[in-house]
Amino acid sequence: MFSLNEKCAVVGIFNVSNAAKYAYYSLFSLQHRGQEAAGIASSDGEKIYITKDRGLVTQVFDEKKLKKLIGDSAVGHTRYSTAGEDSVLDAQPIFARYDLGQIAVVHNGNLTNAKEVREKLIKEGAIFQTFMDTENLIHLIARSDKEHLYDRIIDSVKKIEGAYSMIFLSRKKMFAIRDPYGFRPLSMAKLEDGYVVASETCAFDLIGAEYIRDIKPGEMVVFEKDKEPRSIQVFEPNPHKCIFEYIYFARPDSDIFGKSVYDVRVKMGRELAKEYPVEADMVIPVPDSGIAAALGYSKESGIPFEMGIVRNHYVGRTFIEPTQEIRDLKVKMKLNPIKELIEGKRLVVIDDSIVRGTTSKKIVKILKDAGAKEVHMRISSPPTTGPCYYGVDTPTKDELIASSKTIQEIRDFIGANSLAYISIEGLIRSVGDDLSYCMGCFDGNYPVPNKN
Amino acid sequence: MFSLNEKCAVVGIFNVSNAAKYAYYSLFSLQHRGQEAAGIASSDGEKIYITKDRGLVTQVFDEKKLKKLIGDSAVGHTRYSTAGEDSVLDAQPIFARYDLGQIAVVHNGNLTNAKEVREKLIKEGAIFQTFMDTENLIHLIARSDKEHLYDRIIDSVKKIEGAYSMIFLSRKKMFAIRDPYGFRPLSMAKLEDGYVVASETCAFDLIGAEYIRDIKPGEMVVFEKDKEPRSIQVFEPNPHKCIFEYIYFARPDSDIFGKSVYDVRVKMGRELAKEYPVEADMVIPVPDSGIAAALGYSKESGIPFEMGIVRNHYVGRTFIEPTQEIRDLKVKMKLNPIKELIEGKRLVVIDDSIVRGTTSKKIVKILKDAGAKEVHMRISSPPTTGPCYYGVDTPTKDELIASSKTIQEIRDFIGANSLAYISIEGLIRSVGDDLSYCMGCFDGNYPVPNKN
Amino acid sequence: MFSLNEKCAVVGIFNVSNAAKYAYYSLFSLQHRGQEAAGIASSDGEKIYITKDRGLVTQVFDEKKLKKLIGDSAVGHTRYSTAGEDSVLDAQPIFARYDLGQIAVVHNGNLTNAKEVREKLIKEGAIFQTFMDTENLIHLIARSDKEHLYDRIIDSVKKIEGAYSMIFLSRKKMFAIRDPYGFRPLSMAKLEDGYVVASETCAFDLIGAEYIRDIKPGEMVVFEKDKEPRSIQVFEPNPHKCIFEYIYFARPDSDIFGKSVYDVRVKMGRELAKEYPVEADMVIPVPDSGIAAALGYSKESGIPFEMGIVRNHYVGRTFIEPTQEIRDLKVKMKLNPIKELIEGKRLVVIDDSIVRGTTSKKIVKILKDAGAKEVHMRISSPPTTGPCYYGVDTPTKDELIASSKTIQEIRDFIGANSLAYISIEGLIRSVGDDLSYCMGCFDGNYPVPNKN
Amino acid sequence: MFSLNEKCAVVGIFNVSNAAKYAYYSLFSLQHRGQEAAGIASSDGEKIYITKDRGLVTQVFDEKKLKKLIGDSAVGHTRYSTAGEDSVLDAQPIFARYDLGQIAVVHNGNLTNAKEVREKLIKEGAIFQTFMDTENLIHLIARSDKEHLYDRIIDSVKKIEGAYSMIFLSRKKMFAIRDPYGFRPLSMAKLEDGYVVASETCAFDLIGAEYIRDIKPGEMVVFEKDKEPRSIQVFEPNPHKCIFEYIYFARPDSDIFGKSVYDVRVKMGRELAKEYPVEADMVIPVPDSGIAAALGYSKESGIPFEMGIVRNHYVGRTFIEPTQEIRDLKVKMKLNPIKELIEGKRLVVIDDSIVRGTTSKKIVKILKDAGAKEVHMRISSPPTTGPCYYGVDTPTKDELIASSKTIQEIRDFIGANSLAYISIEGLIRSVGDDLSYCMGCFDGNYPVPNKN
Repeated sequence: MFSLNEKCAVVGIFNVSNAAKYAYYSLFSLQHRGQEAAGIASSDGEKIYITKDRGLVTQVFDEKKLKKLIGDSAVGHTRYSTAGEDSVLDAQPIFARYDLGQIAVVHNGNLTNAKEVREKLIKEGAIFQTFMDTENLIHLIARSDKEHLYDRIIDSVKKIEGAYSMIFLSRKKMFAIRDPYGFRPLSMAKLEDGYVVASETCAFDLIGAEYIRDIKPGEMVVFEKDKEPRSIQVFEPNPHKCIFEYIYFARPDSDIFGKSVYDVRVKMGRELAKEYPVEADMVIPVPDSGIAAALGYSKESGIPFEMGIVRNHYVGRTFIEPTQEIRDLKVKMKLNPIKELIEGKRLVVIDDSIVRGTTSKKIVKILKDAGAKEVHMRISSPPTTGPCYYGVDTPTKDELIASSKTIQEIRDFIGANSLAYISIEGLIRSVGDDLSYCMGCFDGNYPVPNKN
Repeated sequence: MFSLNEKCAVVGIFNVSNAAKYAYYSLFSLQHRGQEAAGIASSDGEKIYITKDRGLVTQVFDEKKLKKLIGDSAVGHTRYSTAGEDSVLDAQPIFARYDLGQIAVVHNGNLTNAKEVREKLIKEGAIFQTFMDTENLIHLIARSDKEHLYDRIIDSVKKIEGAYSMIFLSRKKMFAIRDPYGFRPLSMAKLEDGYVVASETCAFDLIGAEYIRDIKPGEMVVFEKDKEPRSIQVFEPNPHKCIFEYIYFARPDSDIFGKSVYDVRVKMGRELAKEYPVEADMVIPVPDSGIAAALGYSKESGIPFEMGIVRNHYVGRTFIEPTQEIRDLKVKMKLNPIKELIEGKRLVVIDDSIVRGTTSKKIVKILKDAGAKEVHMRISSPPTTGPCYYGVDTPTKDELIASSKTIQEIRDFIGANSLAYISIEGLIRSVGDDLSYCMGCFDGNYPVPNKN
Repeated sequence: MFSLNEKCAVVGIFNVSNAAKYAYYSLFSLQHRGQEAAGIASSDGEKIYITKDRGLVTQVFDEKKLKKLIGDSAVGHTRYSTAGEDSVLDAQPIFARYDLGQIAVVHNGNLTNAKEVREKLIKEGAIFQTFMDTENLIHLIARSDKEHLYDRIIDSVKKIEGAYSMIFLSRKKMFAIRDPYGFRPLSMAKLEDGYVVASETCAFDLIGAEYIRDIKPGEMVVFEKDKEPRSIQVFEPNPHKCIFEYIYFARPDSDIFGKSVYDVRVKMGRELAKEYPVEADMVIPVPDSGIAAALGYSKESGIPFEMGIVRNHYVGRTFIEPTQEIRDLKVKMKLNPIKELIEGKRLVVIDDSIVRGTTSKKIVKILKDAGAKEVHMRISSPPTTGPCYYGVDTPTKDELIASSKTIQEIRDFIGANSLAYISIEGLIRSVGDDLSYCMGCFDGNYPVPNKN
Repeated sequence: MFSLNEKCAVVGIFNVSNAAKYAYYSLFSLQHRGQEAAGIASSDGEKIYITKDRGLVTQVFDEKKLKKLIGDSAVGHTRYSTAGEDSVLDAQPIFARYDLGQIAVVHNGNLTNAKEVREKLIKEGAIFQTFMDTENLIHLIARSDKEHLYDRIIDSVKKIEGAYSMIFLSRKKMFAIRDPYGFRPLSMAKLEDGYVVASETCAFDLIGAEYIRDIKPGEMVVFEKDKEPRSIQVFEPNPHKCIFEYIYFARPDSDIFGKSVYDVRVKMGRELAKEYPVEADMVIPVPDSGIAAALGYSKESGIPFEMGIVRNHYVGRTFIEPTQEIRDLKVKMKLNPIKELIEGKRLVVIDDSIVRGTTSKKIVKILKDAGAKEVHMRISSPPTTGPCYYGVDTPTKDELIASSKTIQEIRDFIGANSLAYISIEGLIRSVGDDLSYCMGCFDGNYPVPNKN
């Protein structure tokens, strides 16, 4: 059964005046991780306040709504668009009253035993009012027989499996925790006398917070007034960080898992150039995510980099479909090649991934229509052969073109003159020869089995 | 602690194609019972669908949203405006997944042991995600050890006290139940091959359903496909029906508790005229709720009835406050006297109740400003001396003017030439000498103690 | 060709601080005359400011927009819904820059030579950017060779024919003028040190302005700072006041043409009772417009008055049509009979007019469906046999049922047991034996020929 | 006096089914030229239809509104945000009825004798209902004594001065015209059996139209059914094309004035590198407009290009201001440097222009705060010392930092280690040694005097 926590962002603000405003700005800088819904819960030490709704951060909140979110601590969330339910009920934070008082939770990731846990809880009499995995956590916490929330969180996360970077807000404290694999990122920073926790470091830059370190896989950090943040290593770390954060999700100006996203992407491009060189006139990225890798490919190969495709950023939801077909309209609305530049040229085109292959096919087509002599697709990730169970909204295995077609067949399908994907080894070299990454969607080695 | 079920409307549609559309129309005709939020849940036998949001029925739903609420059964709700939280999370129906599958509930009324039940449930590990009493019910049902929903509902309502006219929707069945006191109304009707349940009979008129009978106090009616509705008397009936439904809440074209609201109101006016006659030139109602009682007073007294005050129905939420005071603006925006008619006249003014006294004071003032020679206020309810615990949004005892002031003092406060309230006896005579009414707000005899 | 000034309201505020706010409140109380669009223009003596849009007064304006309308004078307008164009461009006031500076105009009425004037102006090089007759006026004023606006307005109105109650706002002055026939109402009042002009006197009541007198047919009143309002009788008055203002348009709490609307309506009911008595059990109005006439009929006939039909005031624009027909839905959404009251009864039903007959037919049907034994329709206007050319949105002659059918045939069509319309004589007696009314839509005597 | 046509886009579609839909898509691709308002007028040969409103193209139009814009020809407009009036009345197209029938006009540019023409027209009795220069044109056309629209347009444009790329739509024809200087661009393309005219060629790419050629300075092209487009050279061309179209306005994937915008920008960067070399570690653009010039600088200098600043594209209008100052929030919301990349590095930063200097100052600051060792600003336009009178929304001369400060002083103000602007000669070389450009804002040589 589907869950609704995939590809999101979380933030937490602790001990900073107008915490909700800082949460708001932080979420704004993490908007690229989820445009479906947004929410913030704040605490003034006595009570928890919450606002959440469908829409962009700037649409969900206005001055009046932010003013009601009083207090010095806050957690926030942006949710990624999913095909199914679009109910406001499935926005985060989740808020609940339970035996220890009030609690709000935000969650980035996906539980692989959500169904099992939910069914067990339901069998024990729990009711589920949302379709979010996160609801499981609050039930587990409420049902734990430990005295303190601190122990209950530990108790509860021991019962769940999968990916989670979560922040819990109680009336007086805040708890940030990452699963033992560290699938999804989570960093902490200092802001005035308080602290900020966020999915990406670009959030810190906007509000002027100073990066301290990442929350470690399996670590929980407890934030309490007039105390230093306390760390407890709840689980033995078994790092399997999501390498797709580098390939596609994160903003290039963020540090993820301690490394510059931009820098890693440039290296991917360099590796691609080493592994799959080709004689060509220029390297062009599919903007915006392919830019850094294209620069890397260009640097390594010596083939000039050009911004051969322009992206239109005004694309919204309410676009009107043409009555009579304008060919390839949806891709052309976003991407338009610079004809004069590419006409008669041999292009290396850098994209981050190929999912179903249909978009790549259209990109090759508009480039060839614009006069490109050759189109050599180079992909800065290995072939995506399997779905992700840890919080990325991938289609089913059947829909993934690389699950059933050879690279040659994919090349034929998309119509490129050549096609190459970075090797897993090349990818690992890009991130620094560190083997602590999850690459289940490439190699089928899933560190945690999916039971849903 | 406050709850959010007060003065609302519920509807249920069973075994009728496009059930959600009928729920929509029914809610539209019950809009006067709650303008804050609206919601509908439907079932197609396999799955429950739900939409709810803040706003009027016609604002919450559009063609596209209604179309997603597929299936032959549906429950709906409109919520009354409350001062506190205005979160969409506190709109109904409440939907949940639990061990027997999926369920949606709508509730009109107020539980007097909600806090106690909630605290017990919380102690047992339940989490509460809304501020609605109704959430208790789903927890109780989910935790019941009975095998069938039917038995579980019975099990659960035995644990709650207070006022409830509720409808439960499961994937295949619908259950309508009224508390043993029958505080709030609930009627059933036939529509094509199916059934309709609603707070007021005016809902039946709009959709062409044929009234069958009221659900009885303490009775549950079970709707199941290809079966006649089954009745079970869960509790010994101990009728204490809310007499304020006649005085103010219900539409005059509804039958409530088996009697015509209009007819009862006319009788109230007659009783008032018998009890508190006065020499005057005309009887005028405070529109719209006072019209029928004013007609009764006129008929009984022989003093001509006139529509001496005109009501402006365009009043919305977003009215702009004047920078420099326009005196009595808020009352004048709604109500304007007909000067030529009342100038130099002795008026009997009929209103349904006096709560804080401030509005009555302003009404007397604008009438006197318009030239009325005498203003004799006649109130078609006894003095409201206590709050309601059963689903009416009354202010606290302190704010009720009749709780601390004599009638003479109230008369002085509002500036009327005379003031009289219908007696409790007169009120009882109006509804037919039937003693089965709750009049706690008048006489302090509350049939169920409030434990919240 | 159609124009867009029909059945509207105008207001003007002069020499009152925050004039736009007073215009806003005044328009609010005149909302019943037009729900399609609203607008206000203000002047601070140096510049004219304007805001107008589609929607109700409370929807078009918010605090922020009102604040931009600075100055001590203002004119406002609400527009009636018309089938055709719904462009914001066709909202009033019309604002223009011309050789004497800036001007804003609001207009209630309809010019019968609009086409002719427009064509002449167009031939002379004028351009028309809206579909409103009013645009003619500004062109005429701009093209007049007189030196002062005062003289130019006089010059211009001499070139137009038809119905107009207009207010002109220049930077320093305000001019209110009524056509020589006085088709549409226009009254003036005192507010603090300034003045208010409005279509109906109920606007004065809300803002606390004191009625002085009506602007006379053919009169222009000039408002200038530090001077008393100056009156000039531009035309010999030839009063043909719209009698439909009494029958249907105006609020019952307004004085129109110096008489109480409510009082006139009661008298119409009395006349109807004298002219067309019938044996019956009760008199019921079609609410809200039929109430006063029904009271009159009751008083005269001695047959008891009852509010036998309840009106739902929540009807908005966005109502969803039923997939499978709910019979008579549109009428039932607005009007619902009180079954218990009318069952087995002989009813006299009072309505203000019959246009196409289809609504009356449905009203008779829902009353008979609810058990009425007999339905005797009594109409407080004579048969509408012709369209109005002076600012009322009537259908074409062909669509008017009374233009082609006898009363007997209409009775058969609507299914009533009997049907009677007030006579023209009875109508005249109701308004006081004064022959100065236009009754073109009843008798075909149109005081000004329609040239459009 | 200000006008409201600055920095906009126009499109025209002729003889293509569903012309309004194509206009809609074309405007979408030109959204970067104006986000304040959008509008489309269409003709079905009999009548002109129009919709315009404030907002983005995707906000102003929905399926329902587009469907009402029937016909095979259409003109469209997007308006640039201006500080002053935000009235819907000042959106384009302007529509009018006049002696030859109906006409709609869209205009990109700014008339330098608008005031003079307007005053003359006003003296002759014209009224102005908007604040747009364009209104002049319709008056002139309506007042021309020529028989055909064709001649009248010619007659009229002879009376106006300044910048205009305009499209006129009558019921049966379309006329596209550019002023003799050709300040603003205007190109034409073939689409099926019809034609498209647009401000930039990127509009053609989206809808699949095939570029034919630019409309020439001083040329009018007449589109008529069943005929080839007819060209008439109304004025002797005196080309002074706006060089800022290359520097900043146009999309890099457009061809403007027959040259690739991207290519010209790359050349500007090369020139800058030749003229103002500097020893540095990397070249970074201020995105998005600086990218191509930065690539040029990099290519010429051999200093590596990096995307050192990341742009957030979610910035909307309703952003909430911080209570307690987050320093440089507004710039940081849009632009964030990649710390790891630039730390300790000597940067060449390429921007397109410096207006007031405040944004540049903040960019230097955030780069230095992020650890940049040196920041060398290179500007791909000469110092902007004067305003534009031809359709660009520049501040007054006083506000332009280069009008009163030396380059050294500006460098000090913005805090850069060095600052250099491309020379006028270098700029000319970039566009191809063609002297046919207007550079009034750089050199004060304004080809047409501003009389407003």
